[in-house]
Amino acid sequence: MDAYEELLRRLRDIDMVGQIGGLLGWDQEVLMPPKAASLRAEQLAWVSKTGHERLTDPRIGELLSKLEERNGMDEIQAANVRLARESYDKATKLPTDFVEEMAKHRSKSLVSWTEARAKDDFSIFRNNLAIAIDLARQKADYFGYDGVRYDALLDQYETGLTVAKVDPLFAGLRDSAAPLVRAVVEKGGRPDMSWVEGNSWSQPSQEALSQSVSEAIGFDFEAGRRDASTHPFCGGPNPDDVRWTTRYNESDPFGSLYGSMHETGHGTYEQGRRRDLDFQPAGEANGLGVHESQSRLWENQVGRSREFCEWVLPLWQQHFPGNMEGVSADDLWQAVNLVEPSLIRVEADEATYNLHIMIRYEIEKRLISGELEVDDLPDTWDDMYEEFLGVRAPNRALGVLQDIHWSMGAFGYFPTYTLGNLYAAQLLVAARKDMPDHDENMRRGEFAPLLAWMRERIHQRGSILEPADLVEEATGSPPSPDAFVDYLHDKVERLYGVTS
Amino acid sequence: MDAYEELLRRLRDIDMVGQIGGLLGWDQEVLMPPKAASLRAEQLAWVSKTGHERLTDPRIGELLSKLEERNGMDEIQAANVRLARESYDKATKLPTDFVEEMAKHRSKSLVSWTEARAKDDFSIFRNNLAIAIDLARQKADYFGYDGVRYDALLDQYETGLTVAKVDPLFAGLRDSAAPLVRAVVEKGGRPDMSWVEGNSWSQPSQEALSQSVSEAIGFDFEAGRRDASTHPFCGGPNPDDVRWTTRYNESDPFGSLYGSMHETGHGTYEQGRRRDLDFQPAGEANGLGVHESQSRLWENQVGRSREFCEWVLPLWQQHFPGNMEGVSADDLWQAVNLVEPSLIRVEADEATYNLHIMIRYEIEKRLISGELEVDDLPDTWDDMYEEFLGVRAPNRALGVLQDIHWSMGAFGYFPTYTLGNLYAAQLLVAARKDMPDHDENMRRGEFAPLLAWMRERIHQRGSILEPADLVEEATGSPPSPDAFVDYLHDKVERLYGVTS
Repeated sequence: MDAYEELLRRLRDIDMVGQIGGLLGWDQEVLMPPKAASLRAEQLAWVSKTGHERLTDPRIGELLSKLEERNGMDEIQAANVRLARESYDKATKLPTDFVEEMAKHRSKSLVSWTEARAKDDFSIFRNNLAIAIDLARQKADYFGYDGVRYDALLDQYETGLTVAKVDPLFAGLRDSAAPLVRAVVEKGGRPDMSWVEGNSWSQPSQEALSQSVSEAIGFDFEAGRRDASTHPFCGGPNPDDVRWTTRYNESDPFGSLYGSMHETGHGTYEQGRRRDLDFQPAGEANGLGVHESQSRLWENQVGRSREFCEWVLPLWQQHFPGNMEGVSADDLWQAVNLVEPSLIRVEADEATYNLHIMIRYEIEKRLISGELEVDDLPDTWDDMYEEFLGVRAPNRALGVLQDIHWSMGAFGYFPTYTLGNLYAAQLLVAARKDMPDHDENMRRGEFAPLLAWMRERIHQRGSILEPADLVEEATGSPPSPDAFVDYLHDKVERLYGVTS
Repeated sequence: MDAYEELLRRLRDIDMVGQIGGLLGWDQEVLMPPKAASLRAEQLAWVSKTGHERLTDPRIGELLSKLEERNGMDEIQAANVRLARESYDKATKLPTDFVEEMAKHRSKSLVSWTEARAKDDFSIFRNNLAIAIDLARQKADYFGYDGVRYDALLDQYETGLTVAKVDPLFAGLRDSAAPLVRAVVEKGGRPDMSWVEGNSWSQPSQEALSQSVSEAIGFDFEAGRRDASTHPFCGGPNPDDVRWTTRYNESDPFGSLYGSMHETGHGTYEQGRRRDLDFQPAGEANGLGVHESQSRLWENQVGRSREFCEWVLPLWQQHFPGNMEGVSADDLWQAVNLVEPSLIRVEADEATYNLHIMIRYEIEKRLISGELEVDDLPDTWDDMYEEFLGVRAPNRALGVLQDIHWSMGAFGYFPTYTLGNLYAAQLLVAARKDMPDHDENMRRGEFAPLLAWMRERIHQRGSILEPADLVEEATGSPPSPDAFVDYLHDKVERLYGVTS
């Protein structure tokens, strides 16, 4: 068999294992009975071990070495070889002992973080965090890097990402978003939220509203599902079977709708993949940042726009006739765009969210390089919140202990959240050039042209290019914070009448 | 590693693959989106191939040969070796070419059977049926047998089953149930079904009723689920995650309740397995006949008893207050025990059901031995229905073409349905000796003692013994039709006042 054909056959097999794991994982989160947890963990471990064994088969290394010397490959073939190499290296570069050590430490660390947060006592987590940082450094060294160590950690979640590339993005945000938020706070004038907070919002009506909006955007429910789960996510085995979830809170109707639009964005991306590349890494969705761009596009760029609010108002009225009496599209728009600096990232609004991420990025960078000591971390955290958001945590639980990520050793992950926001804004600016009627389309609920644009420029391009190159191909410029900053300025000016 | 330990380790791995397949299959039947079908088929094929590869690893053959010469094994060890040998032989005795030939023929045959049934034309299916019979004979020859060829086919679904063992069971039924059914028909006096047929039965109320009854019987919903599907079944990956389904028809409330009790019987069996034998064949539920005994026990022996009807009547009244006005426990009992000879097996009542099976068994036996020619089959079918049930099919679709089994090559399967009915009756007679208050328990909805008896005598005994030996251990006598025949006589006498 030809080496490339053999590689594809092996990758297909590995992907099949991944698809099966995808279904097991979805089931675990959504409807598995509680007592099934421990044997499900064994099934997932089996899947993970089986996939790892097949990926690390030395034969894959041999095939890759052969193919890397071959000339005349087309872009798909080249991408498959490049991506298979990345996966193979990631799976083989870490010694088995080290992987085990990390896994063991993760379990311990997670326990101590949980306790520290519950007792509001950083010292309980301190030593395990110090070890986690040290392990992250070792991991970076195993992977290797050209610039700084932290680059190797960033690259895990978004191929090709480096400090040199991320720094300017966050600098743009810091210099621009932070003063904007300050100006909003100084000016005051919180929109009227009484119609939201004073009402109860029935779950079946929230479900019906989410379903209508997801269908209108173009999610194909013949090739996917909507369900409820504690932690909303988009999963499932393959593009024919994409399953997203949301959660419902009867005192807050926005969480489920905007969560649904977010997951619908992830879901339409998965459904829009090139089907002739099934089972090939080149056909898979791109890195986490690009994936997040699709969710943020529908959740924020579309969902929190004035035009969308005009279109969706009759649906709100249909599903909540009593609650929505006397509420205008403008009231709705103001309510879904409330800007309010807060201590907690996961509750943050669109304007302040990226500042939460920027703070984490800066801290991670310094922790990994050794510029920042673990003992100085809690105060540094609080000082940065005060500087950039104007708020200071009254305790550690609401400050440095709020996120699970570091306890799991996931250094380098946070920035992808912000990349998604930047990419979404940049993509929409480019899409508008091809669709001068975009605002009018949104007002009429005609989402097909925007989805088609994303299908062609993003979904169908899979992982053929590295993330930054894909963004550049689709928009004409390399990733930049400018589109997002402009978008934010424009919006805040219209909403709050401030220009920073 | 010790040979036995190595065997267990390999069996554990194979069982894990089976658990994963169990979940994929459940999902496929219950909630998979329609477009996911073709990739799900590939996932299931992967699981099946992976399991087969691991089971047919020659190392398993070596380990078995070694262990079969070992002395001093306890009953669990001996059972694991015996059961692993059975699986290994079944998986290795058929040449790969032959397995492929069967699979290809099954697809073709299924298509022609579907067409033949739709067009009511046996000749369309005739040739494929003849080939299917020939393939079944070849399969029997590959497996090997001591008595007649058909024995090897029976053994596939219930280990140790032979014509010599089944013949007396069906003879007892034939000589006794057939005249009884005739006597009921001659006497006439159909119970009043107007309250059933004249009402509509809402699905949510049917669901609530099924749920209450299943909980009362003792199905653990923390370790399992109830869902809806077109073809009701009990599946799921393991005893901590047992998932059964039912279907709802708003003009017939009995289908969902008795279907639910049937599947609850299968489900409590799976949940009751010995957990120290997880992943070992000795801990698995016994053959199809024993499994069916647990479903039939709760569906019929309990569910259609006069005492159960007394207990359950208030639940019916609670969930269907309007429909149940003026309906007594006796009305309910009569309605759920309607005896009426009919042409279709899957719609048959408790008294006539086994006659449908007996006819199929006699026919299969003669087809495999060559005593009956395929061309004579349709008329033989009709003649036997007339002889034993007093009804004759007006066409082939309602006659010989009604079942899917032969088109799939599943010769030898039908008898397990009747074995379940016989075992259930025999088990309850034995259980009554230990529980003199059984009827009173049923009247009070105290199902725990009966479930505990089955747990100890059946569920916890897994597959340590062969099916017939298990029945004998549990009841004190080898399988026999007597208990069932007595049960039927007694019931029909009380219901219809006839004694044949």
